[in-house]
Amino acid sequence: MNLAHCGEDALIATLTRRLELGANVRVGPGDDCAVLGAPRAIRWQLLKSDAVVEGVHFLSNDDPRRVGWKAFCRAVSDVAAMGGVPEHALVTLAVSREVKVAWVEALYAGLRRAARKFGVSIVGGETSRSPGPLFVNVTISGWVERNRCILRSGGRAGDILHVTGRLGGSRAGKHLDFTPRLAEARWLVAHFKPHAMMDVSDGLAADLPRLAKASGCGFTLDETRVPITRGCTLAQALGDGEDFELLFALPPLHAAGLEREWRRAFPRLPLSRIGSFIQRSTLNTQLFQNGYDHFADA
Amino acid sequence: MNLAHCGEDALIATLTRRLELGANVRVGPGDDCAVLGAPRAIRWQLLKSDAVVEGVHFLSNDDPRRVGWKAFCRAVSDVAAMGGVPEHALVTLAVSREVKVAWVEALYAGLRRAARKFGVSIVGGETSRSPGPLFVNVTISGWVERNRCILRSGGRAGDILHVTGRLGGSRAGKHLDFTPRLAEARWLVAHFKPHAMMDVSDGLAADLPRLAKASGCGFTLDETRVPITRGCTLAQALGDGEDFELLFALPPLHAAGLEREWRRAFPRLPLSRIGSFIQRSTLNTQLFQNGYDHFADA
Repeated sequence: MNLAHCGEDALIATLTRRLELGANVRVGPGDDCAVLGAPRAIRWQLLKSDAVVEGVHFLSNDDPRRVGWKAFCRAVSDVAAMGGVPEHALVTLAVSREVKVAWVEALYAGLRRAARKFGVSIVGGETSRSPGPLFVNVTISGWVERNRCILRSGGRAGDILHVTGRLGGSRAGKHLDFTPRLAEARWLVAHFKPHAMMDVSDGLAADLPRLAKASGCGFTLDETRVPITRGCTLAQALGDGEDFELLFALPPLHAAGLEREWRRAFPRLPLSRIGSFIQRSTLNTQLFQNGYDHFADA
Repeated sequence: MNLAHCGEDALIATLTRRLELGANVRVGPGDDCAVLGAPRAIRWQLLKSDAVVEGVHFLSNDDPRRVGWKAFCRAVSDVAAMGGVPEHALVTLAVSREVKVAWVEALYAGLRRAARKFGVSIVGGETSRSPGPLFVNVTISGWVERNRCILRSGGRAGDILHVTGRLGGSRAGKHLDFTPRLAEARWLVAHFKPHAMMDVSDGLAADLPRLAKASGCGFTLDETRVPITRGCTLAQALGDGEDFELLFALPPLHAAGLEREWRRAFPRLPLSRIGSFIQRSTLNTQLFQNGYDHFADA
């Protein structure tokens, strides 16, 4: 069986099943970041790697500054999804000998711009030759206060589901210019206590079932409430992916208060109540499965 | 100008020149690992990413277990070269849809074997599609006691240069099966205090000048003392690369004592005194430059 017939989640589950985790591992594979440190430490370390590949996540003729921005911001978004603060980054490039030095410098300008914007130091930069497409791997090390660390697995039946921003349309270009919701996530974990959170990277249709599964819940989704990017369809909002918006579950008692406070704190960024977690035994968990899977046939 | 006419060191120097480093960055780009933490902390964090690419660092028909071992051990070797201890790892794969699931599982078996051998937990594993060659990025987070952390930059004129093991022959297969000198490096920094250290990844001919330059020194190399892998020539020992042996500079006062203790501690691993650091103004710093450069024309 090759990867096209396997699916990304199944593959990762297979690969990470037999990993032995040390005493200082709070959360291993499966959440937005790894969480490391002693169980009662005041702060935990967050660790995340993420790669973009030419021909998959960007095209040869895309602006290299925007490619660098995207490569960096994907990992920042994962740190935000834990409620954390990114601090240090490593960049690994694999690049063909035919690529112009100026192109790589422009890519780095995009990486540097994102690093500066989100307060991160790029502390290492490896390069290697690639016989084909360009690869950019970004690793971010950060931290989060233990009592503000939000996992995917803490959701409970009854929790209200919110999503930030508008979904869909990434393929029209937004995927190269998105803003990771770092400030919003830090505000959220300081003022409210979501039970579960993630960033929407593969589309709501793929990611909401993941969040529900990690929390041991089913879910309801009110499709009329899904915030759709202007000019997009609901299908695009659910399936395009690379939105990098926050999706989180909050106790119903706090939902109205959050919505009120949110409008004051972030008047220009919509926050939409799109559904809720329910008991897992209830029916409609697998309503859809059309988000982006890296290996599946189109 | 494209990368083939630029050279790896020049490219990295260009890219990392304008990076802004935060207050907690002890060492940024340019050493074997980034070193992070408060100036007087008891332990510092080490951070390193390294990638292997199909067609560059391994071939399609190489045993995937050995490819996984190599990908992991390259980063372990960089942590060893700082005198440190690797603790947590992230693995990023970019892989074609045509690759068999069994192949990727075997690759992971090699990664897991190396992780277990060196006491590291794999705490995250991303996968992505690649339109072409396979790409494996390994990030390792580790630590080192502040007073045992060995940089490239601490060497002084008069220091004796030693190298572990035997050099050359990596291309005949050793590059897939090498053992990073983690135990040896930890012993070394506990019992002696090298002024400067690195691992030999691009060949002594490329790496010794780098170590000397980082330390602001020139160097002498006694080519008759270079330990050569059986069946190899001196040119191969200097230029093949991917030896992953330790190269370090020690005050002359301690050299004889080290050699005596080393034979007792590691009777099966040669330690060779190959030269010394000298004043930079002296002539023969640029005697050779035929190590492996990732972008240079062959």
